[in-house]
Amino acid sequence: MARWQPHAPERLLVAALELFEERGYENTTVVEITERAGLTKSTFFRHFPDKREVLFGGGAMTGLLREGIEAAPAGAGPLETVAHALDAIGRQAFTSERREFSARRSAVIATNPELREREALKELGLIAAMTDALKHRGVPDLTARVTAELGALAWKIAYERWRDTSGRADFAELARRALAEVRAASASC
Amino acid sequence: MARWQPHAPERLLVAALELFEERGYENTTVVEITERAGLTKSTFFRHFPDKREVLFGGGAMTGLLREGIEAAPAGAGPLETVAHALDAIGRQAFTSERREFSARRSAVIATNPELREREALKELGLIAAMTDALKHRGVPDLTARVTAELGALAWKIAYERWRDTSGRADFAELARRALAEVRAASASC
Repeated sequence: MARWQPHAPERLLVAALELFEERGYENTTVVEITERAGLTKSTFFRHFPDKREVLFGGGAMTGLLREGIEAAPAGAGPLETVAHALDAIGRQAFTSERREFSARRSAVIATNPELREREALKELGLIAAMTDALKHRGVPDLTARVTAELGALAWKIAYERWRDTSGRADFAELARRALAEVRAASASC
Repeated sequence: MARWQPHAPERLLVAALELFEERGYENTTVVEITERAGLTKSTFFRHFPDKREVLFGGGAMTGLLREGIEAAPAGAGPLETVAHALDAIGRQAFTSERREFSARRSAVIATNPELREREALKELGLIAAMTDALKHRGVPDLTARVTAELGALAWKIAYERWRDTSGRADFAELARRALAEVRAASASC
């Protein structure tokens, strides 16, 4: 049985990103990623079903989002619930130390159609997860779907601003601002 | 020079769908699709960059959507503009003769992760096209993005209802109803 490897997904992600930057996504193999990370191929496939998935964390973000929505205060309205989940994501995933890395990751994804397709599918997955988690809180079906779409849009706007600015803006703060803007805009459609 | 082939994209689509249903997407080649359609491989690649794209019409829907938004009455608000575009799509693409075919197409896409990824990317492309076309009409940036997201959600809801019911419901009618529902739901987020 394989030895447990601490932080294997993170090490594989860092190695993959470096290689994709150096020689391109198409010209990098899973074996090269595992060699750079000092891990084995079987460790890679224990964490990720294919080469692309190493950039997408195999569903970790979906889990954080679900937990954040479940943990929101009982009285919070639908978009306010999403704001609580985005706070949690800012604390646990989009920390200031991750900013530069996230910008590099986005730049690599933008260069390759296969990666853009995977990212698009992930986005739909996140919206579906948000919708489900909101329905579990008793939000009516269609309101949950609309909230998830608006929440995902605010998330994207906040993420772009967070990633592309060299400032000290906190992700959770940017997310709350984007949610307020999206809510106001939805009233003028 | 290749002879002009009438309705080549449509013939390739019909042949591809039959073959994907009979033997699966993975087990069908582009050559088999072209043989079934009575066309050549070069005709296929003149219309579609790869095997998957034959199910997605190579951007035809994006064109219809842009035109529909451009052609909406000058005084129409953002979501009303999208309603006009969806009317046009109902008249030109989602006609009642296409209903059964669309349901078969959706069923094939659902069976294959590569096709689902392409569909996800197409959805983002349609949202981006809607956003652009709305901005060209002078709709402010963020309102255009929100309108496009809500419009795409209404579109999806209307499409699912249209595709899955054996009734005589007209796509444009279903789209107007879904837009009204989405608008109402967005006020309760």
